[in-house]
Amino acid sequence: MFKKILYPTDFSDVAAKALDYIKQLKEAGAQEVTILHVINQRIIDGLRRHAMLDKDILQWQKKAEEIAQESLAEMSKELESLGFTVKTVVKIGFPWREILEVEQKEAPSILVIGSHGRSNLGEAFLGSVSDRVIRKCKGPVMVIKRDSED
Amino acid sequence: MFKKILYPTDFSDVAAKALDYIKQLKEAGAQEVTILHVINQRIIDGLRRHAMLDKDILQWQKKAEEIAQESLAEMSKELESLGFTVKTVVKIGFPWREILEVEQKEAPSILVIGSHGRSNLGEAFLGSVSDRVIRKCKGPVMVIKRDSED
Repeated sequence: MFKKILYPTDFSDVAAKALDYIKQLKEAGAQEVTILHVINQRIIDGLRRHAMLDKDILQWQKKAEEIAQESLAEMSKELESLGFTVKTVVKIGFPWREILEVEQKEAPSILVIGSHGRSNLGEAFLGSVSDRVIRKCKGPVMVIKRDSED
Repeated sequence: MFKKILYPTDFSDVAAKALDYIKQLKEAGAQEVTILHVINQRIIDGLRRHAMLDKDILQWQKKAEEIAQESLAEMSKELESLGFTVKTVVKIGFPWREILEVEQKEAPSILVIGSHGRSNLGEAFLGSVSDRVIRKCKGPVMVIKRDSED
């Protein structure tokens, strides 16, 4: 029931906590992990609004993708050393939408996501990324909170 | 990591689905389950607003508690036959608040909750019971959706 895991990360502390949890799921039968990072389209839109040139945006975007890939490769190595099969995916878009799209496509046994447990003021109306993903995804979700015990 | 489970149920179909999931968690090390049902204070407030006499409300409440206890006893028997240790709790109050209170007190390894995956219009502003519980609880939560595959 935990064979195939989808793990979206924004590189936050709660996302790291969710990764620790995934490692423990090995003994419960976890085998494959897809690590997903979404570069937020809003940032790119913001750069554009601040009159950054398209070629500079593209350069930033490429750099951001590289850095993300490196971080995912590190996590991947760690998980592989524990016996997991790992796939890494970097996408650009609105995080909640991209996460849901991958969930639909891959149909994981479970989606494991960190949640800050509170939305900041700006997010209070729309809900945070994790709120939306939890509400809209199709399959089971494991939510790891900032305050969770290890 | 799944040793002690808190399972709130409103007797809905998604709550039943969450229970099926819990049964499968046995092989992942689940041992104890606390089954919790909260009789919604709003219903009692509603009866009062409709001029039901206090003694009739108390009688209704007692009946509702009895019926809930019977349903929980049935679930309990089923889980016990699979080797779980079970505790049943019936409370009266606002479901999300009571669920969170039990979560704080019992500190389960995981809270397993069904979610309808969409709020109805009236709940859209405040969020459904499961939305609130997921957002505010301290420990890990497993969310079982209506659309989840078994």
